[in-house]
Amino acid sequence: MKAAPLHPPQLKFPSLSPVDRLRLDALRERLDELRPRNIGYPCNQDFDFEDLFPFLAYSINNVGDPFGSSNYRLNTQDFEREVVTEFARMTHAPENGWWGYVTAGGTEGNMYGLYVARELHPKSICYFSEDTHYSVAKILRLQHTRNIMLKSQPNGEMDYSDLRETLRIHRDVPPIIFANIGTTMKGAVDNLHKIRAILDELAITNAYIHADAALSGMILPFVADPQPWDFAGGADSISISGHKFLGSPLPCGVVLARKQHVERVARSIEYVGALDTTIAGSRSAITPLFLWHRLRTLRPEGIKDLVHRCLELSQYAVEKLNASGIPAWRHKNSVTVVFPRPPASVMSKWIIAPMKDIGHMIVMPHVTQAIIDEFVADFASALRPAPVAPEPATL
Amino acid sequence: MKAAPLHPPQLKFPSLSPVDRLRLDALRERLDELRPRNIGYPCNQDFDFEDLFPFLAYSINNVGDPFGSSNYRLNTQDFEREVVTEFARMTHAPENGWWGYVTAGGTEGNMYGLYVARELHPKSICYFSEDTHYSVAKILRLQHTRNIMLKSQPNGEMDYSDLRETLRIHRDVPPIIFANIGTTMKGAVDNLHKIRAILDELAITNAYIHADAALSGMILPFVADPQPWDFAGGADSISISGHKFLGSPLPCGVVLARKQHVERVARSIEYVGALDTTIAGSRSAITPLFLWHRLRTLRPEGIKDLVHRCLELSQYAVEKLNASGIPAWRHKNSVTVVFPRPPASVMSKWIIAPMKDIGHMIVMPHVTQAIIDEFVADFASALRPAPVAPEPATL
Repeated sequence: MKAAPLHPPQLKFPSLSPVDRLRLDALRERLDELRPRNIGYPCNQDFDFEDLFPFLAYSINNVGDPFGSSNYRLNTQDFEREVVTEFARMTHAPENGWWGYVTAGGTEGNMYGLYVARELHPKSICYFSEDTHYSVAKILRLQHTRNIMLKSQPNGEMDYSDLRETLRIHRDVPPIIFANIGTTMKGAVDNLHKIRAILDELAITNAYIHADAALSGMILPFVADPQPWDFAGGADSISISGHKFLGSPLPCGVVLARKQHVERVARSIEYVGALDTTIAGSRSAITPLFLWHRLRTLRPEGIKDLVHRCLELSQYAVEKLNASGIPAWRHKNSVTVVFPRPPASVMSKWIIAPMKDIGHMIVMPHVTQAIIDEFVADFASALRPAPVAPEPATL
Repeated sequence: MKAAPLHPPQLKFPSLSPVDRLRLDALRERLDELRPRNIGYPCNQDFDFEDLFPFLAYSINNVGDPFGSSNYRLNTQDFEREVVTEFARMTHAPENGWWGYVTAGGTEGNMYGLYVARELHPKSICYFSEDTHYSVAKILRLQHTRNIMLKSQPNGEMDYSDLRETLRIHRDVPPIIFANIGTTMKGAVDNLHKIRAILDELAITNAYIHADAALSGMILPFVADPQPWDFAGGADSISISGHKFLGSPLPCGVVLARKQHVERVARSIEYVGALDTTIAGSRSAITPLFLWHRLRTLRPEGIKDLVHRCLELSQYAVEKLNASGIPAWRHKNSVTVVFPRPPASVMSKWIIAPMKDIGHMIVMPHVTQAIIDEFVADFASALRPAPVAPEPATL
């Protein structure tokens, strides 16, 4: 055997150049400036994960089923199981009758739910309201699932009579109902009891309901009188985001489904030789730690406090806007405050997601009363007609 | 208006309990112990992102097209564009003729490529070899794409005569060729020139080639004599992982595709009202910073050094194993060292991904000569027959 090659000790981690360091500094300044003005997106900006920074030194990976055994032992699947178990508790999943995992965000969670649904009912039609997030149309196209967009009520909730009439003329095809548990723009909740009642009325027994509870899935478990939305309400699968109400520096979420559905899909997956029940395969082992850290530090009482504080401030925002002559409203149990699309000057200062003629403020935990006051003042003054210049004095 | 509700200053970030802190400590100890023994998975364990820890305090998000404009201004899309531009350079993408984004890992990159292919050729058949990663069958099932698994050669490369014969009898259907640029188990590269030659021979002009270059996509740009694998070799789209050769604490990657394909897909996406050209929608804004940091600190020269060090050490491992009586081999330009499946005692100490009767070591940047020596010594001694006890002395 020839002599082993020699590898001189190398400079393992060379430094960033001074110019590149300045670029990172500039990015940080930009983010510091923007953060308090982010009132239009449901991303909580208030969290502190310093405890977890040391884990960014490892190439960890939760590849595959968190309840299976992974050959890749640099994982945090024990923490992940705790996180999804807590979410199962919050969503009233049937005991020992659910399965789930931590996703890379809402799209993966919705894709998983719609995939399970399509595997159970290969010839199905998916129904969703026109207030549904655009990513759902993308997923359905990707998965080649037949689909029909339903009308919404003006308040953003699904038009149940349109659902009933459309289902009635397609009773030969199993329906997949994509329910918004908090629409993107208006925070409207598609009521699962009403949907189930329509299905019962039409004697449709092979339906599947997926609940997209991206934001409200962390709110409704903590209110006294939630709309029917979760497993107790009849959902077959639920997707909840982690980076929205709880907060995380990168998108993540949890998807849960009834175990009997997952098992049927697992069998069909085994048949094609794809050994993995998750969509992503290689999955972040850091985001389960983030979620675990939030759940363990806040505890259910802490999350409940945050939820109630945000709901109260949302109501405060509605009243403050109305008092300033700006028509604003919100749904019960919602932190989404809807108002007419603000003028350009307001949109350039505040980070807001407008759609057509409406805008909204989403009162996440980082939004304070002072921020609301400043926003309402800006909005009101932008609407006020510019003072008319006095007639020039005539000589 | 009623008086504003008062919110007492709250303890924003409660602490972990001492018990939970101990759990994190235990996780760290476990990871420290496992890290140097991870020789079977292509995850570089050597990186230092401390410069970027401050960005974990922000809820940043690169939602949507990195080349579009995002309403969510807390993003790092300028850094992302630089990263994908560098990957486009490394893969010889046609100037101004490519598009791409940072993915959450290899599965998303492959899903994107196969989605673009299926949108271009809705009635296509996808061909892939039996050495292809199991996630590809999962993606094809999710996307409802007809597919045929081809035979592999014993060295892991696609069996080109099987490809030719199978294509010949399906000349009425546009083919999508899924090419492995480094198979998972044997590091074999499906040669794009050979594939293109077969397509030409059969006068098939409407083919699409996706290159899954998860690991080798960061190796082949830095060797003197690469197999034909990239856009210059005829690929239509390429997926490369970020957490593999470069290294990252969580899965990530880059997907690139020829611009004319992407534009056609974008139009069909617009038609269904899904405004987003990426698969994920909300995307991590942290992983583009990780990739940018690695590219800016290592520079092409530094990556080239790492690649050559790993290739030399791979050859060293082959020779050392052979010298110990263990048959081992590797492909040209590959850091994957293939050998017979090691005995259980070796598998419990080292993190190795065996499949059927073979195992492999993947010489990533964190694998040192000392680690190789220790592994080979363990493997050789586990194979040595236990010393036979001397006959008991007869009285």
